[in-house]
Amino acid sequence: MTNRVSIVGATGYSGAELVSLLAKHPSAEIASVFSSEANAGAPFASIHPSLRGVAGPRVEALDFDALLATDPDTLFLATPNELSAELVPRLAAEKITTIDLSGSFRLRDASLYPLFYGFDHPSAGLLDRAVYGLTEWCNGSLEGATLVANPGCYATSILLALRPLDPLLGGATIICDAKSGVSGAGKRASVDYSLGELAGNFSAYGVAGHRHQPEIASQLGDGPAFLSFVPHLLPIPRGIFSTIHIGFDRSVEPGEMAAAYSEAYDAAPFVHVLDHGDLPSLRSVVGTPHCEIGFQLLGEGRRAVVVSVIDNLLKGAASQAVQNFNRIHGYAETEGLS
Amino acid sequence: MTNRVSIVGATGYSGAELVSLLAKHPSAEIASVFSSEANAGAPFASIHPSLRGVAGPRVEALDFDALLATDPDTLFLATPNELSAELVPRLAAEKITTIDLSGSFRLRDASLYPLFYGFDHPSAGLLDRAVYGLTEWCNGSLEGATLVANPGCYATSILLALRPLDPLLGGATIICDAKSGVSGAGKRASVDYSLGELAGNFSAYGVAGHRHQPEIASQLGDGPAFLSFVPHLLPIPRGIFSTIHIGFDRSVEPGEMAAAYSEAYDAAPFVHVLDHGDLPSLRSVVGTPHCEIGFQLLGEGRRAVVVSVIDNLLKGAASQAVQNFNRIHGYAETEGLS
Amino acid sequence: MTNRVSIVGATGYSGAELVSLLAKHPSAEIASVFSSEANAGAPFASIHPSLRGVAGPRVEALDFDALLATDPDTLFLATPNELSAELVPRLAAEKITTIDLSGSFRLRDASLYPLFYGFDHPSAGLLDRAVYGLTEWCNGSLEGATLVANPGCYATSILLALRPLDPLLGGATIICDAKSGVSGAGKRASVDYSLGELAGNFSAYGVAGHRHQPEIASQLGDGPAFLSFVPHLLPIPRGIFSTIHIGFDRSVEPGEMAAAYSEAYDAAPFVHVLDHGDLPSLRSVVGTPHCEIGFQLLGEGRRAVVVSVIDNLLKGAASQAVQNFNRIHGYAETEGLS
Amino acid sequence: MTNRVSIVGATGYSGAELVSLLAKHPSAEIASVFSSEANAGAPFASIHPSLRGVAGPRVEALDFDALLATDPDTLFLATPNELSAELVPRLAAEKITTIDLSGSFRLRDASLYPLFYGFDHPSAGLLDRAVYGLTEWCNGSLEGATLVANPGCYATSILLALRPLDPLLGGATIICDAKSGVSGAGKRASVDYSLGELAGNFSAYGVAGHRHQPEIASQLGDGPAFLSFVPHLLPIPRGIFSTIHIGFDRSVEPGEMAAAYSEAYDAAPFVHVLDHGDLPSLRSVVGTPHCEIGFQLLGEGRRAVVVSVIDNLLKGAASQAVQNFNRIHGYAETEGLS
Repeated sequence: MTNRVSIVGATGYSGAELVSLLAKHPSAEIASVFSSEANAGAPFASIHPSLRGVAGPRVEALDFDALLATDPDTLFLATPNELSAELVPRLAAEKITTIDLSGSFRLRDASLYPLFYGFDHPSAGLLDRAVYGLTEWCNGSLEGATLVANPGCYATSILLALRPLDPLLGGATIICDAKSGVSGAGKRASVDYSLGELAGNFSAYGVAGHRHQPEIASQLGDGPAFLSFVPHLLPIPRGIFSTIHIGFDRSVEPGEMAAAYSEAYDAAPFVHVLDHGDLPSLRSVVGTPHCEIGFQLLGEGRRAVVVSVIDNLLKGAASQAVQNFNRIHGYAETEGLS
Repeated sequence: MTNRVSIVGATGYSGAELVSLLAKHPSAEIASVFSSEANAGAPFASIHPSLRGVAGPRVEALDFDALLATDPDTLFLATPNELSAELVPRLAAEKITTIDLSGSFRLRDASLYPLFYGFDHPSAGLLDRAVYGLTEWCNGSLEGATLVANPGCYATSILLALRPLDPLLGGATIICDAKSGVSGAGKRASVDYSLGELAGNFSAYGVAGHRHQPEIASQLGDGPAFLSFVPHLLPIPRGIFSTIHIGFDRSVEPGEMAAAYSEAYDAAPFVHVLDHGDLPSLRSVVGTPHCEIGFQLLGEGRRAVVVSVIDNLLKGAASQAVQNFNRIHGYAETEGLS
Repeated sequence: MTNRVSIVGATGYSGAELVSLLAKHPSAEIASVFSSEANAGAPFASIHPSLRGVAGPRVEALDFDALLATDPDTLFLATPNELSAELVPRLAAEKITTIDLSGSFRLRDASLYPLFYGFDHPSAGLLDRAVYGLTEWCNGSLEGATLVANPGCYATSILLALRPLDPLLGGATIICDAKSGVSGAGKRASVDYSLGELAGNFSAYGVAGHRHQPEIASQLGDGPAFLSFVPHLLPIPRGIFSTIHIGFDRSVEPGEMAAAYSEAYDAAPFVHVLDHGDLPSLRSVVGTPHCEIGFQLLGEGRRAVVVSVIDNLLKGAASQAVQNFNRIHGYAETEGLS
Repeated sequence: MTNRVSIVGATGYSGAELVSLLAKHPSAEIASVFSSEANAGAPFASIHPSLRGVAGPRVEALDFDALLATDPDTLFLATPNELSAELVPRLAAEKITTIDLSGSFRLRDASLYPLFYGFDHPSAGLLDRAVYGLTEWCNGSLEGATLVANPGCYATSILLALRPLDPLLGGATIICDAKSGVSGAGKRASVDYSLGELAGNFSAYGVAGHRHQPEIASQLGDGPAFLSFVPHLLPIPRGIFSTIHIGFDRSVEPGEMAAAYSEAYDAAPFVHVLDHGDLPSLRSVVGTPHCEIGFQLLGEGRRAVVVSVIDNLLKGAASQAVQNFNRIHGYAETEGLS
């Protein structure tokens, strides 16, 4: 039996990838797709080049009643943070399973929203109900979940690299030097994001406090002594490359790290760990739902460099949302993704 | 004795290159630099990376009285078309020599402005007074000129390639397939010009009527039987590459073309013609004030392919403006440019 | 019943795309993959990022007996021209259906090979047997074919745009100004193809005689009075953008062109023609098996600009090869491609 | 009185920039330019686009007697490491002042050469005589020097950022996460450096031991407790962006860092430090001889992020060599560079 899905924010970069994946998903049927007023009326196939010749509903301007009228079983929100925060309680009231790709339900602590997201959270009571959807680390919590907070793109790449090392990170200092293609910032009508300004350029931003920092920190817990996150903008369309510099509190063997990764991901279809000393390049994952991780110990095992790469629009957004969709509804995790 | 110069539109791409050139020009002294309100108060050195450590006036919001108060001998307008059309008569009234980098005084025929520029020309009476500043073809008209219309970037690359061939172009069909980097469109706050949309992309635009078409046609005169101009957008910051396909009315020898180019440019410091069959690449001129031209005859001399390359911000704008400045005031043509 | 396929040249750009497509083709089973000595022993999944987690045979160094031992029904050659010319007769002797992605069987006239390909054709007797596999124009000739010459990438984009206009092209002059991403040249260990040299660059090449010129000309026949083909190198990885400038022998109406395209492609799943005046951009086809065509009449219908865009590695190579594979064996044309 | 200069390795990326700078240097006269056999006979102006129209000697294949015959006062070596190591003693014997842009005389400890450079140093006795030419930190040692080891590009960007902090770095952990454009690797005839492979890509390399690591470490001395250096390859032609993550042994105030930088660089014409919290982007220095440095304290002053940007071919190679040339001979430090 197919699951009726609706996508809000279908014409942004992540939303379009999501529509493209769901259109080919054997268990999903696209009930409706919504966007801002500017894109209303656009044909379904215009959303993504891969949809050429594929039938589906026209893009509509978002209207909550119109959305309900299309009777979706699962709703995907690829919407701005404040819009998600406003829509989620209404969807909860209608008992519609929701996968939110924005940051609005990623933090448990409502007091962080004014500082990192610039607004008071209007539905803080739902923060505890949201499952943080880093699929490989959700254990049984996704099955039957009604609200999933899809992780941030940077957070996905960094947490997939660090979570397996939890037992080694007590007292550690962790420096995440991350680099992202421009699609991570969404479609931007800004001189700063124009090709004329960005070609040949590279820059750091958000050094004093990017919103993915508390997301990463809260998921890692109290073990590490220090965690910093410095994002940079790569002059390319897509992909995230995170270089993670770890200072351990004791000496670590390559075999210990390999064993930790092996236990975590040997059965994971979308996370792959390379042999010690072998580091992945970005191109090996762009356009795919995969994460690749490599590591190198230094300084007699007291330090490590870990590299984690993903496609920010897929494993960092749309394909992870589909993994979560599959888990919620009991489909095979790889359905629609391979 | 130095010439006091003022630049209006100093923070756009062409304006910034112009300021950078004039700051090092031995006979120029920068009296003032103006921009839109948004950039007012910016330090002089912020205009261009090459100005680091160079002293000069702060950027001011444009105000005509303030401009006059800085007492410029020569004014450079790197302004939107309509603003130039409005400023030029006021500058003429003040007897300030003006070099206009916009398109507002490039066409003689005022009736073309509504169609190609979208406005009725407010100072059509001055169109006849403007010298069309394709430097190498100005003969004596620049010396002492008071109003110069600096040619369009596409027009510069194409006319430098075609003007020497005038005697061969009677009855010819001429197809100009031109490609430009994005800086030709100025600083654009638009999703369409974002790196996310343009990286890896290529497109044609203005096929049915780009404003450089009547500019090129009017400068070529009535000889050619047909002229088309099809511009394209290259996903790179700067440079224009014009591929010009000519169908002659008779058979032409390589030596005839070589002789025509030799006569035109042997003494020109900034235009260089390669040997028959050798075509220039864009990189050989980007960042320089030079134009390079190559040609190849085909079809038993009935057809030719001519390639002309320039840096759109330099020979297509700022450095040609400095050539014109030098000629107006009797400085050596290469002053400040080599 | 599945068709056992083997790919020779599996690790080049086109070969890798072909393996990626065939690995997901419901009617194909990959029997073996061959490459040069340098790649021998590489795991199947290393061929293309999309193959992560997909099972298949290891890459082997090409050996004809080893190839026969894997008992392929269909062989795809993504090999250098001379190697294809040598392998094809041996495959014909073994009655193995062959789809050749090289240029070795695209021309009927063996005398053109020394000039355009640099070698005397060793199996000229087979040139007449090869079906020129521009799928949409093959009518019934592909069904059951044993040797298919897969068209060149430039030729595909240009011929798909021009073949429908055959009745309008008598006496016409046709100028093909084409632009290709660098993957069209294959994997190149050359300073000229390094990013350091190509970033921000653009150039023309092969103006006096590219090998796709006789291919295009021979497929168009004797109607046009003049045809030129000028290829350029875009500083991007993939995609072909052909701007075709046509001078008709009479005046043509937009409706005539639209009707001609409609008749040719309304039923074609992978060729799409836009409305008069609407021109496609490259990004709309990169990563897809589609061709998009747009056109604009000029000069009172005596001239037209036609733009045709494809992904050079897909519609210009691998996906067209799969279309041909489908037609040969009677599978649906879209099988494995949508 | 002009200084006769000769450049060996004039057609590589750094060498060409050097020739371009020296051709305009008021106190230098180019006596000869040498390259490998492949470039012998090329005209002087072909070395760099900016030399169009500039007179100078033809490129010659390197021959030591021919070099001596041109009677240079100063020799610049932009040569492979092993060639420099072989040439320097011969030049020393001839008492020719030499500025070596290779790595052959950057380390004092000859035992590091086999490990980091892959050869036994043939003239280890000269290592002590070489002045390490990080211009801003040379104090009086450059004046009259006869052998200068021009620093590595990464080392320049990192040491300029760290040397002023010496008093704060006792017991510190320093992690240098550096990113370089591809010209840092020189002109490469390699598939790995082709645009087809690098466009849209990003990767780390040399994590276990890049040759700039011992260079940086030896210049910093024994203060820091730990130093790591992880270089990455940016898919752009030029520029180095170093993100330096410092863990101090105590709490540091922004004012302390600002004061340290101010003392070091207030009088330095080519190093500029931004206000606390303001980080430079790469484009602000590409094409210039400048270094820009920004810093941000974190974690209550126990941690800092410092960003240092340079053009790898200029401040990281050619323009720093000219600074050193100026200092050796007593010219103003900015001569030929502003």
